[in-house]
Amino acid sequence: MASTVTSRFHESFTKNALRSYLAEFISTFFYVLIVIGSGMSSRKLMPDASLNPTSLVVGAIANAFALSSVLYIEWEVSGGHVNPAVTFAMAVGGHISVPIALFYWVAQLIASVIACLFLKVIVVGMHVPTYTIAEEMTGFGASVLEGTLTFVLVYTIYAARDTRRGRVTSTGALIIGLITGASVLAAGPFSGGSLNPACAFGSASIAGTFRNQAVYWVGPLVGAAVAGLLYDNVLFPSQNSDENVRV
Amino acid sequence: MASTVTSRFHESFTKNALRSYLAEFISTFFYVLIVIGSGMSSRKLMPDASLNPTSLVVGAIANAFALSSVLYIEWEVSGGHVNPAVTFAMAVGGHISVPIALFYWVAQLIASVIACLFLKVIVVGMHVPTYTIAEEMTGFGASVLEGTLTFVLVYTIYAARDTRRGRVTSTGALIIGLITGASVLAAGPFSGGSLNPACAFGSASIAGTFRNQAVYWVGPLVGAAVAGLLYDNVLFPSQNSDENVRV
Amino acid sequence: MASTVTSRFHESFTKNALRSYLAEFISTFFYVLIVIGSGMSSRKLMPDASLNPTSLVVGAIANAFALSSVLYIEWEVSGGHVNPAVTFAMAVGGHISVPIALFYWVAQLIASVIACLFLKVIVVGMHVPTYTIAEEMTGFGASVLEGTLTFVLVYTIYAARDTRRGRVTSTGALIIGLITGASVLAAGPFSGGSLNPACAFGSASIAGTFRNQAVYWVGPLVGAAVAGLLYDNVLFPSQNSDENVRV
Amino acid sequence: MASTVTSRFHESFTKNALRSYLAEFISTFFYVLIVIGSGMSSRKLMPDASLNPTSLVVGAIANAFALSSVLYIEWEVSGGHVNPAVTFAMAVGGHISVPIALFYWVAQLIASVIACLFLKVIVVGMHVPTYTIAEEMTGFGASVLEGTLTFVLVYTIYAARDTRRGRVTSTGALIIGLITGASVLAAGPFSGGSLNPACAFGSASIAGTFRNQAVYWVGPLVGAAVAGLLYDNVLFPSQNSDENVRV
Repeated sequence: MASTVTSRFHESFTKNALRSYLAEFISTFFYVLIVIGSGMSSRKLMPDASLNPTSLVVGAIANAFALSSVLYIEWEVSGGHVNPAVTFAMAVGGHISVPIALFYWVAQLIASVIACLFLKVIVVGMHVPTYTIAEEMTGFGASVLEGTLTFVLVYTIYAARDTRRGRVTSTGALIIGLITGASVLAAGPFSGGSLNPACAFGSASIAGTFRNQAVYWVGPLVGAAVAGLLYDNVLFPSQNSDENVRV
Repeated sequence: MASTVTSRFHESFTKNALRSYLAEFISTFFYVLIVIGSGMSSRKLMPDASLNPTSLVVGAIANAFALSSVLYIEWEVSGGHVNPAVTFAMAVGGHISVPIALFYWVAQLIASVIACLFLKVIVVGMHVPTYTIAEEMTGFGASVLEGTLTFVLVYTIYAARDTRRGRVTSTGALIIGLITGASVLAAGPFSGGSLNPACAFGSASIAGTFRNQAVYWVGPLVGAAVAGLLYDNVLFPSQNSDENVRV
Repeated sequence: MASTVTSRFHESFTKNALRSYLAEFISTFFYVLIVIGSGMSSRKLMPDASLNPTSLVVGAIANAFALSSVLYIEWEVSGGHVNPAVTFAMAVGGHISVPIALFYWVAQLIASVIACLFLKVIVVGMHVPTYTIAEEMTGFGASVLEGTLTFVLVYTIYAARDTRRGRVTSTGALIIGLITGASVLAAGPFSGGSLNPACAFGSASIAGTFRNQAVYWVGPLVGAAVAGLLYDNVLFPSQNSDENVRV
Repeated sequence: MASTVTSRFHESFTKNALRSYLAEFISTFFYVLIVIGSGMSSRKLMPDASLNPTSLVVGAIANAFALSSVLYIEWEVSGGHVNPAVTFAMAVGGHISVPIALFYWVAQLIASVIACLFLKVIVVGMHVPTYTIAEEMTGFGASVLEGTLTFVLVYTIYAARDTRRGRVTSTGALIIGLITGASVLAAGPFSGGSLNPACAFGSASIAGTFRNQAVYWVGPLVGAAVAGLLYDNVLFPSQNSDENVRV
């Protein structure tokens, strides 16, 4: 038992594992840089960007294009997470070990904080925007909405990496970006449309306010885990799902 | 004869069939959630969204990105309908049996109603928008426009799943989303740009008004059936089309 | 000699040829329906759409999404023209016979006129918009701009169908749509951004004004022919280019 | 030694090399034509385009769609640079020889100048826009931002052409376009969002002002070289990387 723990811990430091963490760091850094950066672009051009419909289009396109790309570049390396909720689902489903998942989280969160810090330093005199919840929404409702949309994001990732569906191609990375962009259009003005605890954490860290942070963690983590378990156990059960879903 | 009916009925409850209904439910739920949700986003940000051109862009991108994705995730499972008109065309063309088609319809309609109900409950105090017809349009004209655009949607689905054209790839799901997004740009301000009776039914159910509902059923169902029959019998006839078009 | 002419004429009526004309008709009809229809959508929502930047985005997305899709559905059937300039380049380069090219033209032009007529009848009381040239442009300059952008469109089509570059995939159809959408962004407010004589002809026919029609024919035809000849003879010459470029 | 230099110089004039330069010229010409042309479109439609959010969307879509397409058409010919920073990274990493890199640069810069000259001549009375830096940015900060985003662009190009990741497909060209479009959304209002010294050089040449030109050269060149070296030596080292990364 102890030796298993030790070996699991050791396998977190193989060359491939370290490469995965670096890939997660790079991809998450650029995803957050572009998503939060495009939010700052909107704010610079529009007096009250959060009430402007064009900023909604900007946010959706930035999310879709950036996520597709950063998943593409790490697709065969780290499995394409860029999102603590995705990593959580993969760990709950047993597709990656808990120690490796923790290092993924660390890489993702540090990357997000550094990306937001980079934006704050480079764009002098502008605040880093945080995700906000509309007045007509409760915190619980916002978390449910974020979690529901994270469900479909994780479900799409599972489908895209399921080798039983044929060769895993890079089209999957594109589709995952598209569903995220579409989700931003639906959720943006209501719950913010984060779907990614790392984005919410990084921007909150640099903005210095962790108000509503739980909303962007609880919902997505629950939604992600449910999506993964449903996919593996109800919709596409298999003798040994580890062999089928390449993670 | 009676045994055929019985066996057809029984085959509607195989494990694969039940999985198909669940996949249709999940995909339709998220498609409607994002399409109607993005309509609510537009309305929140714009005083009169139905007269604002940016809301047209939002609707088109939401449709294109969401439909591509939800078709992708059920592509090898249920055949990628998410739309009662598509299911109708497949049943008329003999690609799926009538009992299975009926269960598809039930899954699609329930999913749409639940998605709209979800939006109404989560976003307190906002109405679920319904599809409306411009003043300069007659109801008949609107139905013809919706039906014509559903024609090209179903025609594209047939082309995307025709194994005679080479390997059926996930690029097809992307293209089907694109033609739907483009159709919204052309039809949105005139007939609403639904192309999908499930969307119209779900939003009308929760909004509580079935005005013009026939417009969003008759046109699309007729257009879809004509597209399927034309594809199978005039443009690409075959000895046994069931073997060629994977549904 | 005479028998060659006769046989060439006869081959224009084979089952495959007739199917090609029908495929061209269907694809061009829907392309024009969506492109001109989205122009009418913009005009309905905006008092002076031709001066509104959002209508530029609408036009670009409609062009990109619609062209990708209609090329996709006829990709293996008629070779994906939907555009008299493309057909002209293929005929000049010897990839299709002149009689077949003429029937393609007829199918494209009739489809465009019917699409515009359809829009005029369905949307009561709105004019079908025509392509216009900005004040600061000369007619010659506008034609050169349209021709230059048609050059890259046809060049992209040649690249997408060149079997020497590997398997001809449907990604080509997507890329051709993207370059057309991008071209609309650059040329829209200056020369209209047609790149397609059929679009210009159909809308002018129904609007009843053929002003500047030459601009949308001469430039694109010349640009298309130059692109095809340059591709076949300078950049990628071969013993028998008919065998390499699948048309 | 001397003979090596001579042979390296000679290999810059093989038929394939000349074809590469021509392909680079054509692709860069159309990329700059569409990117700068869409900037002029925005300015024509909007009194102060640089402060208008819709012009940001126009720029991002124009970049994404145009770059995807022009990379696609030269993908198997010149390796898909269209950007002096990319060529610089390839030369630093040893993937192309220095003389060939220099000819690539010449082709790219001449193409960009001619594209901007073309726009100035065709669109009478409008200035060619240049990239500008926001007031709250320092020149150093702008260059760092441009360089950081060029890093991810070059990193994506390396990933897309790495044969170890499987067959090099045209999906890579699409993804490279998407990350560039996303980068424009994040950097546009702050540093201009060029990511390409050729674009900046061509527009500055025709506008007649080389103010801030260093910003658009230093950052991207450094970012590109770092990305290439990191990819080859840290993330994906190999005995002979020339064999793996097809350039």
